[in-house]
Amino acid sequence: MRITVIGHHDEVTRRRIRRAAGDAQVAFASDPAEGIELADAVVGNVPDPLLARAPRLRWVHSPSAGVDAVLSDKLLASEVILTSSTGNGAIPLAEHAMMLMLMLDRDAPRWLRAQSERRWDRYAHGELAGKTVGLYGLGHAGLDLAAKAKAFHLRVLGMRRSPGTCAPGVDELFGQDDFPRFLAESDFVVVTAPLTAATAGRFDREAFAAMRPAAFFVCVSRGGIADDGALLEALREGKIAGAGLDAHGVEPLPRDSPFWTLPNVIVTPHNGATTAETARRGLDIMLDNVGRFARGEPLRNIVDKAAGY
Amino acid sequence: MRITVIGHHDEVTRRRIRRAAGDAQVAFASDPAEGIELADAVVGNVPDPLLARAPRLRWVHSPSAGVDAVLSDKLLASEVILTSSTGNGAIPLAEHAMMLMLMLDRDAPRWLRAQSERRWDRYAHGELAGKTVGLYGLGHAGLDLAAKAKAFHLRVLGMRRSPGTCAPGVDELFGQDDFPRFLAESDFVVVTAPLTAATAGRFDREAFAAMRPAAFFVCVSRGGIADDGALLEALREGKIAGAGLDAHGVEPLPRDSPFWTLPNVIVTPHNGATTAETARRGLDIMLDNVGRFARGEPLRNIVDKAAGY
Repeated sequence: MRITVIGHHDEVTRRRIRRAAGDAQVAFASDPAEGIELADAVVGNVPDPLLARAPRLRWVHSPSAGVDAVLSDKLLASEVILTSSTGNGAIPLAEHAMMLMLMLDRDAPRWLRAQSERRWDRYAHGELAGKTVGLYGLGHAGLDLAAKAKAFHLRVLGMRRSPGTCAPGVDELFGQDDFPRFLAESDFVVVTAPLTAATAGRFDREAFAAMRPAAFFVCVSRGGIADDGALLEALREGKIAGAGLDAHGVEPLPRDSPFWTLPNVIVTPHNGATTAETARRGLDIMLDNVGRFARGEPLRNIVDKAAGY
Repeated sequence: MRITVIGHHDEVTRRRIRRAAGDAQVAFASDPAEGIELADAVVGNVPDPLLARAPRLRWVHSPSAGVDAVLSDKLLASEVILTSSTGNGAIPLAEHAMMLMLMLDRDAPRWLRAQSERRWDRYAHGELAGKTVGLYGLGHAGLDLAAKAKAFHLRVLGMRRSPGTCAPGVDELFGQDDFPRFLAESDFVVVTAPLTAATAGRFDREAFAAMRPAAFFVCVSRGGIADDGALLEALREGKIAGAGLDAHGVEPLPRDSPFWTLPNVIVTPHNGATTAETARRGLDIMLDNVGRFARGEPLRNIVDKAAGY
């Protein structure tokens, strides 16, 4: 049995992967094409054209939490099992979302501008307590953010694909049909959902029109869930108060993107979960799954390929 | 019985104060000297020289939470009861402290600089989860921040004057003798304590030397608790990693203050709790106490004048 591991890994990590694999053979490769004919499993992205050349392939593990870039039509149609690193960056992503919410609510960029000019610029601002946050997506990041939001005395609304399941920290779960009311009741709408066929472009003109003019839009998971044109229009025309964007429709955000300069937007470079701990948690998930695969045990973090996450 | 209320209040507020006072007479004044001879109570600051002219004065209510600017030696020595608005801004102050912690941990000013230059500046940063925060002061703001910190998966250390009492959300309470260990174990030290004889200058050279070089200092209550010279030295010499300062030794922070331009410092203009809700909560406390005083009932938020808060 052969597991191909793509990408650079230092010697310590390689040793840990080999140990996890037990009797299975581990091949480290910089290019997924290397030895793809012999691979029973690949840790890393397998480009579409290679799938036809991989008759033995049974498992692909994505080192990232979101699999939108990995999950091609061919992979979807195949019987190859796809697992993800979902959960690896949930906590720092929730931290980032809360930071953006606080910075937007208090207009923190204004303080930093004043500081750079040595100006004592004291002004009245809002507080999160008593406001309402709508969480679009209740996976690892969304649920962690829900708990944080409760500690900030926020009312927490939630929306996800399977509304029936329990969601601790969420005061009210909304069904997909209730999207307009979910938006209309939220002072902050925070997107933590994966990019899937169901979520792509979900935040369109109609969605932003349903939001409150005083509300903020925060996206920390994937661009593409918001229609960039609709978001831009909403920000320019005051249909919403502002946005905190870590995930963008095109990344890196092009130099000529209007999002950089909108006064009511905070842009961060898809950087919310870029921590050493995220890497460590991702490695732990990978090692666990390598061991499970080698021993013939059920894998964890299996992607529902039809759902897209 | 006459209650003098100092400062500007609109007609609606005046009506509410009069209603709360019941049969007691309410005199609105812009200057505390006005009719001070007849005042049984004053809502507002009573400058020292006026105390000798106020033979009937039994109660002074401070519209702010901290009474360091109000509590003169003469007021301390007198039998006048002092009450404060403590608790009015606790929640937004805790929000501000958490925002500063997140912004420092992630170096958010770097993102805003990059945004202003349309640069995609992606870098590894920390996460709060798993770190330790030391709360110096466990009043309303400190305890609210403790609950928030737990939702951020932080270990919470606490220090206050009376260590025996219960402190929900605090993992370990430290006695005053344990100050060096409290500092040495904290990745963030957050000052929410009042400025009193016991806390003034408590953060001196020795204290900053006891902190970790990677640790951040955050102050949201009062300047003067940190010795500005010692803090400056610690920031310049890398004894600590940085600071988030809403409260300053001199306010407004003078234009030539070096704090404005230190690269590892976020300055905000004593602005953490400046919200409409803080004003509303402060008014509620004042109305409650006006009613209590008029009816001869025990006042709330009585300041322990010897302790200074």
